[in-house]
Amino acid sequence: MMDPHTSRTSHAAIPLEWVGPIRITTETGTEDIEVPLATYESPLWPSVRRGARVTTDTEYGIVATVIDDRMTRSILLEADDAATVHRTVVDLKSALPQLENVVRQSSRHARLLDMHYQIVGNLLYLRFEFSTGDAAGHNMTTLAAQMLTEHILRTRPGLRYESISGNYCTDKKATAVNGILGRGKNVVTELVIPRRVIEQRLHTTADRIATLNTRKNLIGTLLAGGIRSANAHYANMLLAVYLATGQDAANIVEGSQGITRAEDRDGDLYFSCTLPNLIVGTIGNGKQHSFVEANLTQLGCLAPRAAGENARRLAVLTAAAVACGELSLLAAQTNPGELIRAHTRLERAGK
Amino acid sequence: MMDPHTSRTSHAAIPLEWVGPIRITTETGTEDIEVPLATYESPLWPSVRRGARVTTDTEYGIVATVIDDRMTRSILLEADDAATVHRTVVDLKSALPQLENVVRQSSRHARLLDMHYQIVGNLLYLRFEFSTGDAAGHNMTTLAAQMLTEHILRTRPGLRYESISGNYCTDKKATAVNGILGRGKNVVTELVIPRRVIEQRLHTTADRIATLNTRKNLIGTLLAGGIRSANAHYANMLLAVYLATGQDAANIVEGSQGITRAEDRDGDLYFSCTLPNLIVGTIGNGKQHSFVEANLTQLGCLAPRAAGENARRLAVLTAAAVACGELSLLAAQTNPGELIRAHTRLERAGK
Amino acid sequence: MMDPHTSRTSHAAIPLEWVGPIRITTETGTEDIEVPLATYESPLWPSVRRGARVTTDTEYGIVATVIDDRMTRSILLEADDAATVHRTVVDLKSALPQLENVVRQSSRHARLLDMHYQIVGNLLYLRFEFSTGDAAGHNMTTLAAQMLTEHILRTRPGLRYESISGNYCTDKKATAVNGILGRGKNVVTELVIPRRVIEQRLHTTADRIATLNTRKNLIGTLLAGGIRSANAHYANMLLAVYLATGQDAANIVEGSQGITRAEDRDGDLYFSCTLPNLIVGTIGNGKQHSFVEANLTQLGCLAPRAAGENARRLAVLTAAAVACGELSLLAAQTNPGELIRAHTRLERAGK
Amino acid sequence: MMDPHTSRTSHAAIPLEWVGPIRITTETGTEDIEVPLATYESPLWPSVRRGARVTTDTEYGIVATVIDDRMTRSILLEADDAATVHRTVVDLKSALPQLENVVRQSSRHARLLDMHYQIVGNLLYLRFEFSTGDAAGHNMTTLAAQMLTEHILRTRPGLRYESISGNYCTDKKATAVNGILGRGKNVVTELVIPRRVIEQRLHTTADRIATLNTRKNLIGTLLAGGIRSANAHYANMLLAVYLATGQDAANIVEGSQGITRAEDRDGDLYFSCTLPNLIVGTIGNGKQHSFVEANLTQLGCLAPRAAGENARRLAVLTAAAVACGELSLLAAQTNPGELIRAHTRLERAGK
Repeated sequence: MMDPHTSRTSHAAIPLEWVGPIRITTETGTEDIEVPLATYESPLWPSVRRGARVTTDTEYGIVATVIDDRMTRSILLEADDAATVHRTVVDLKSALPQLENVVRQSSRHARLLDMHYQIVGNLLYLRFEFSTGDAAGHNMTTLAAQMLTEHILRTRPGLRYESISGNYCTDKKATAVNGILGRGKNVVTELVIPRRVIEQRLHTTADRIATLNTRKNLIGTLLAGGIRSANAHYANMLLAVYLATGQDAANIVEGSQGITRAEDRDGDLYFSCTLPNLIVGTIGNGKQHSFVEANLTQLGCLAPRAAGENARRLAVLTAAAVACGELSLLAAQTNPGELIRAHTRLERAGK
Repeated sequence: MMDPHTSRTSHAAIPLEWVGPIRITTETGTEDIEVPLATYESPLWPSVRRGARVTTDTEYGIVATVIDDRMTRSILLEADDAATVHRTVVDLKSALPQLENVVRQSSRHARLLDMHYQIVGNLLYLRFEFSTGDAAGHNMTTLAAQMLTEHILRTRPGLRYESISGNYCTDKKATAVNGILGRGKNVVTELVIPRRVIEQRLHTTADRIATLNTRKNLIGTLLAGGIRSANAHYANMLLAVYLATGQDAANIVEGSQGITRAEDRDGDLYFSCTLPNLIVGTIGNGKQHSFVEANLTQLGCLAPRAAGENARRLAVLTAAAVACGELSLLAAQTNPGELIRAHTRLERAGK
Repeated sequence: MMDPHTSRTSHAAIPLEWVGPIRITTETGTEDIEVPLATYESPLWPSVRRGARVTTDTEYGIVATVIDDRMTRSILLEADDAATVHRTVVDLKSALPQLENVVRQSSRHARLLDMHYQIVGNLLYLRFEFSTGDAAGHNMTTLAAQMLTEHILRTRPGLRYESISGNYCTDKKATAVNGILGRGKNVVTELVIPRRVIEQRLHTTADRIATLNTRKNLIGTLLAGGIRSANAHYANMLLAVYLATGQDAANIVEGSQGITRAEDRDGDLYFSCTLPNLIVGTIGNGKQHSFVEANLTQLGCLAPRAAGENARRLAVLTAAAVACGELSLLAAQTNPGELIRAHTRLERAGK
Repeated sequence: MMDPHTSRTSHAAIPLEWVGPIRITTETGTEDIEVPLATYESPLWPSVRRGARVTTDTEYGIVATVIDDRMTRSILLEADDAATVHRTVVDLKSALPQLENVVRQSSRHARLLDMHYQIVGNLLYLRFEFSTGDAAGHNMTTLAAQMLTEHILRTRPGLRYESISGNYCTDKKATAVNGILGRGKNVVTELVIPRRVIEQRLHTTADRIATLNTRKNLIGTLLAGGIRSANAHYANMLLAVYLATGQDAANIVEGSQGITRAEDRDGDLYFSCTLPNLIVGTIGNGKQHSFVEANLTQLGCLAPRAAGENARRLAVLTAAAVACGELSLLAAQTNPGELIRAHTRLERAGK
């Protein structure tokens, strides 16, 4: 793919493989499905595949629950003093229906769900939370926030514009607010693996995985000064699915902030990945590319469904791929030398 | 790019454009150079271009300083009690030359630079810091850490293997340790923009950018519970350069944790981006693709240089692209409605 | 104060001085008032006094705004799976009036204000937010949470007790949630200091204080991996007021997480301290001591007022003392050697 | 204790009780010892007592290991650009013996142990780490930092003074740096409790405490956006010991950032508290009060020992009190209603 005018590449062609099938259960039933992973890091494919194979050795596979779905934008306004800011907030909280109307006029799809705020001296950070249908919603929320800003400045005297984004959103930065107030799809996956499957497929035990998870993902990340983060490598799987499906992959920054739990239940393993900040869409920027459309179609994410359902389905599939990769790596790390042997073997095989 | 056997795409083709020239000054002189950005988010290109144009309106452009360069891996060991762990650490600190030897045997390129540790009860997290030449170093450090683990377990009784990675490294997670102890290339960029250029190119003032930077990047991110992060959107530019140059782009998670400073100096603007965790390489995984090789060649990052110099050059170019995009967005946000107008215009133009 | 049976001290007698007057303006008017500081660190008294003197050189002194007032407790429950947890949350959100009734039965003073939650796999963290009148509310919220727990377990099948506190409250730990969702009194203080006063009283300039605040409190704390914290030493003043007024002083942990702003306004200084987590009460544990009662009376915090007003008044006075000490230290640090000279002088004077 | 001139109290008299004995084992042997707790929160005494009783039911009780001991101060300097800053750092690192000499001249007790730095644009944060003998070291390190600042400014051209403290120290703020680089005494306590003792004294099991610790202290605090913190209430015990022994109790802010581990070992409980930031001294501010001196003498912390040994002994005793209180509260929270019943009973008993 070269640009004929410049003799330069016009695309970065990231290698893509489909991995699976992964067995996934949601409210709507159980299915076995493959997911596409685009990555330069080819060892990721066999790793996720190994986790996927575990899921098909269980009856329900990965059980996914969508907890929440919203997209946010925080604006930044200034007043003469904190008292003015505070009065404005009290007033705006009682005028939410008014603000909802403004948002409705900004887009057919955007709906205002909630509003939170922070006051620092004479500064006001207003965090608006929206429903954005099947779009990830970056642009939709920016437009809605712009119209809300104009509305507020027009109707509430004493305020001045400072920024359309005050970083309290928070987009693509490592923070705590997104997990606490919600941003993106919040998906929980759960998988119960029988002792026999752990031994045969993963060559380890529930107890060893549970112990490692506490010591590495929980305590190790804590020692590192981690913020709302307890996992081995969510970012790897997120990047690969995001690139394969036309997402704004910089959102892996907050996406990486999820929590792995592993508990030994009489030899079986309860394995759960909570991903509070999956920011994915099935329409909008990046989705117009034909390979993206093909991939989304293959995933069943461009079907005629209620607004938001396709995007939430994609979030579930993404979370499932994350769970497979996380399980596989943790299992490998319980065995001395396994990780490095796997990498060496893959490299010898020419990858 | 379809796979003939599966009738499925074998690659994710991410649109790529070269932007610039950016004027950059390092110890070795001043040059004007374009950089490749691969992204689904096409408005990023004109945004970075606008910043680039500012740099060529100044004599030295972006002045870049490489502060540090190291790659890390933390292993996790267990003993019977904290006293045993403590004795081992004291002993290992006095035996660093021994450990350096072990590392030298693991690879021609890896060198042990330093070791830090954490003790939590009877657990020992050992964080090894390496020089890895022109490789980003993920695999090189894993192999070295594996050999160090084996050496320590063989020579220090009373310790047991727990994990080849204890998450105190920290790879692709939002933490504080990487900025404090170092991981990746630490690059500072500085740019002094005359008042006239700010007005003509960016339609704003130094004072407004400086005020916005304090209120949005510093205070706004703080409110969000940010961790060592104060910028508008480093992650966007990092992702685009990483994808275009064959990097492991999941490292934008820690890469996004950088600090923008903006100060009004009598109407001129001092603008600085500090990126402590740029994890890039010019050899290794992902670099074997011909378009990556072409891009790295075009950037002058595959030249015959001392080990590590090509990778550090790439880090500087990456940091320069980040600075251009950061400056452009901050300037835009000082003007009400500018961001949304720019996006709308780009979309109408069919992007 | 010795215990006659053991010949041991029965009290720790912390030296206490009253400092001020501090000029404070709230909705109810302007007053000049002294505050008591109990501390082993005697240099704190002259430091806060210097700040206080600045306030009386201005017309309104410190203008204080109370933004919020609530106390929290998070319980921790377990279910078989995330779906059950999610259904329970949806159900509880629609049954808030029911929960409010439960809380009303737990105490005359406690009122349920709001509820937030976190789901991690099959675990449910429910964070209840209460109004607790003039009590700080630790015990009142624990009792209310206990009754809520019993009510929920009785009425919602499939849930099991895990803990009366799940650390998502969060009490006396350094976290982000308290500032984001609210815990304690959220008080903003603002003070505009004329150029002349800065020079005469503080021997510095608005610009130097503003620059120092950005570089030290914002950037310096960020580098340290600070969490929602940007100040020089709030903890010192908080401890001293808390001890003097019978508070649970371990709450300085979250109290210390506040934000100082300093802006140069044409030579005058806008100085603001935002303290989102002041946990103080005028009734309850510690208030029964006669010297505490005397101090609270002297502060006008035991007056006949609407429930909560005395405690909010105390929060305002505390915040004002914090502002005086913060201003004084920042001003001192702009001058090389001033801090150490002040300490040496105080020590020579026998303290 | 009234001031006769003002008719106001001259002291805050915090109720103090001795609790114990606690059985403690260090390198120097095993002893049973009581510790003084000064607090308004009287339920703390029986809670710590219950934990203490558990320790005397085991052979070695709490085994304490001192991992590290240092005190820090970070100065903040400015240069024209990052290159100058970087050159200075490289130069200073090679001139540590010179800096050690400067420190030696500042005090008989202060010794320079190490230096770390952060560069942000043209700003330099230098973090000096000192040994300070038996003093907590706040003033000693400030004086040493002042002399280091003067030395550096005199000998390294191109640098300017910005602040004697750049908040990268970090004193009394919730950050990550202190745990990572060290500040104060780093003490690990470990206690193995037989199944029978857990059942009889704590009415629970090892498994329930271990499970609660993971879900509450590790995951719950993580959800709250905690930073390097995983415990139930270290701050309570720290405050009480600090007040009773003349410490600067505002240091409980960083002191509260420690890690509780609890593991079920075949029915026995491995219980460990890691406190990386205990800032205590046996000489200096606050120690001149006769009751403090009496308490320190009773604790055996004013004995003739090598410099630093008395302070480290005090740190061990403090950590032991923390462990007792932490164990007792966690055990109580495993039983529904126990916490509230205990509080109610204590209140009825007139406290």
